[in-house]
Amino acid sequence: MPLVVQKYGGTSVGDADRIRAVADHIARTRRSGDDVVVAVSAMGKTTDELIRLAEDVSAVRPGRELDMLLTAGERISMALVCMALADLGIAAESFTGSQAGIVTDSVHTNAKILEVRGDRLRDAITRGVVPVVAGFQGVSVEHDVTTLGRGGTDTTAVALAAALGADRCEIYTDVTGVFTADPRIVPGARRLLRVSFEEMLEISATGGRVLILRSVEFARNHHVPLEVRSSFTWEPGTWVSEEDATMEQAIVSAVTSDTSEVKLTITGVPDRPGIAASLFRALADASVNVDMIVQNTSHDGTTDISFTVPRTELAVAVQIAEGLAPKIDAAAVLVDDAVAQVSVVGAGMKTNPGVTATMFEALAREQINIQMISTSPIRISCVVDAASADAAVRVLHDAYGLASSGDGLRPARAGG
Amino acid sequence: MPLVVQKYGGTSVGDADRIRAVADHIARTRRSGDDVVVAVSAMGKTTDELIRLAEDVSAVRPGRELDMLLTAGERISMALVCMALADLGIAAESFTGSQAGIVTDSVHTNAKILEVRGDRLRDAITRGVVPVVAGFQGVSVEHDVTTLGRGGTDTTAVALAAALGADRCEIYTDVTGVFTADPRIVPGARRLLRVSFEEMLEISATGGRVLILRSVEFARNHHVPLEVRSSFTWEPGTWVSEEDATMEQAIVSAVTSDTSEVKLTITGVPDRPGIAASLFRALADASVNVDMIVQNTSHDGTTDISFTVPRTELAVAVQIAEGLAPKIDAAAVLVDDAVAQVSVVGAGMKTNPGVTATMFEALAREQINIQMISTSPIRISCVVDAASADAAVRVLHDAYGLASSGDGLRPARAGG
Repeated sequence: MPLVVQKYGGTSVGDADRIRAVADHIARTRRSGDDVVVAVSAMGKTTDELIRLAEDVSAVRPGRELDMLLTAGERISMALVCMALADLGIAAESFTGSQAGIVTDSVHTNAKILEVRGDRLRDAITRGVVPVVAGFQGVSVEHDVTTLGRGGTDTTAVALAAALGADRCEIYTDVTGVFTADPRIVPGARRLLRVSFEEMLEISATGGRVLILRSVEFARNHHVPLEVRSSFTWEPGTWVSEEDATMEQAIVSAVTSDTSEVKLTITGVPDRPGIAASLFRALADASVNVDMIVQNTSHDGTTDISFTVPRTELAVAVQIAEGLAPKIDAAAVLVDDAVAQVSVVGAGMKTNPGVTATMFEALAREQINIQMISTSPIRISCVVDAASADAAVRVLHDAYGLASSGDGLRPARAGG
Repeated sequence: MPLVVQKYGGTSVGDADRIRAVADHIARTRRSGDDVVVAVSAMGKTTDELIRLAEDVSAVRPGRELDMLLTAGERISMALVCMALADLGIAAESFTGSQAGIVTDSVHTNAKILEVRGDRLRDAITRGVVPVVAGFQGVSVEHDVTTLGRGGTDTTAVALAAALGADRCEIYTDVTGVFTADPRIVPGARRLLRVSFEEMLEISATGGRVLILRSVEFARNHHVPLEVRSSFTWEPGTWVSEEDATMEQAIVSAVTSDTSEVKLTITGVPDRPGIAASLFRALADASVNVDMIVQNTSHDGTTDISFTVPRTELAVAVQIAEGLAPKIDAAAVLVDDAVAQVSVVGAGMKTNPGVTATMFEALAREQINIQMISTSPIRISCVVDAASADAAVRVLHDAYGLASSGDGLRPARAGG
């Protein structure tokens, strides 16, 4: 019997009506002949409310206790989903992360899954019972309750699918799939029928908010096909799966933007070997996640080094850069926090020259200045002024003809 | 180092301010040199809200899932208490019923504790950490989450105290102790400084709402001295402990009333051996808890049998009685659901005649008719008209001089 793992996010189980609708869909899937395992998030704003409560009570908030607190959320939603299923005559049992055998490391509030035992889930499936598993949570090897960080329920669902050898993993959310661009920015954005894991990784890494990078990586590493779809419309969504060599690949699948990073520039850096190394070693030691790096051509024996870091790590990065600047005889540390990264992603880019030229020409036509550039085999990203970000996304979406594509698999070769 | 178990009920941890106040008190106890283990209930109305949510979602509500749902409540409060303790520099760790090793049978929503392993709690105490344990919950031998029913957190606290060999168990609640009568009915009711386990059992069994019968039984069986006190005033409360033979005992310690039972009467029952047995066997088989039973003197070869049952079991009891009546040639089944049981409780009653006479005289003076009577060595209970219940409590409280007593241990011998 095919086994499907279904993940329902917070808005999908946001109230009693939504929970009954979800139960109805699970029941339908079950009755169609599939074995089903469910992973659920906490209802709607529960997690935010619990965090607010913790802030009201305490300034310290130890991670172990924060995890204990937050895991109450999924406990509530999963029990309610099981009750709604009972009303529909579907045998269901809820399982905490611990009961499901989701063993993690001990990094509270951001634990990594080490192993999914899943014995009780397999037993439930054998008994004809639908296991409903708490997303976002696990148990550490020290038997403490842990949580998996942002997007944790996606990770739970994918990990369960991998451990149980599921045929597919359906991620139900409040959007109908993965789009060629954020429809709030590009009204003509089109839902993609299919993207490869590699494309999805790049989309997630560059601002696409539908799936968290980590769950996509997990799915790719464990060969779990994902379908991202809506629990509000139940229509078919976007498949995320292995690249299919027999299929012609989209040159550009999606345009993304991201304003979560800021740009630092160290000017007048003496152009000597080891200078850049000392800067980026110091940043790495402080756990600052440096993304893009650009070093200008040397001029009069000095150069400028620009790099981007997450906005949340700006203070630490500035402290390190300013501490290092006098030691390396650099002139100044400049911060630009009004930048955006705009990216185009497509697996077909690998074998199609000209994509980069199309991007630069399109941005130039709109008078959008490119401050930094970074590329991967299937992605080109440019840092631009934050105020130009939405215009950049729209012009690029148009330049690659993403709106006019017929079936989402083969966009017109506007960028070819 | 002395070990104290402290239990905090729902109103005691009702909001962020209350939780900080509780943490403050725990910290003070800890700093005074005691080892402390804490058992907490869910915050205020959390459990009611979760039940309402379940009712919105489902008509079936399987017990296993209801238990999973409701145990979210203590998870929240215990994590918050630990966070508040962290702010005060007190190392604390929360433990679910399962983590604390509270093993129960599998009767969901009303499980009985089979064993308290407590290894992790002992380890925490050794490390100088205050364990904060979820009240009301356990884990079944099948590894499912269970709850202990009404008053479950008191039971948790007493069970922990017994298992860990605590020197005392402090039950913090929203009243300042055990009173000679409900102060809402008798404004002059006085707080008792001390009652014996036996008296407390009778008080709990006859309508005293401060402690649940089951937790008192558990404390008595395991010789755990209890102190009932207020988390709002923190003043010394009422000690519940073994009877102290060297101490003069109160003849009457408290007057209680209870309107949770109803009276059934089967009239015209043939006065033959085995008739009453067949009735009460049938009721027992249907798990109806019969409390008082009165059979009138036979008259013309027939008699009337009256008995009381919990209001919640009335429908079942009536069904059984009406089914049986024609088979035993009884005349009719009458129901009186406007009755109350009024009781006087006191350990000194055993050695003091005249207590009963005082009771009957006092009720007679107020024209309150006694419908049924039941006694134990340290209790006399009368069923009266529900409308007279409060007046009965007041006149009895007065008749035994409970308000005028100096120290709560030796009430004036008004009833002697």
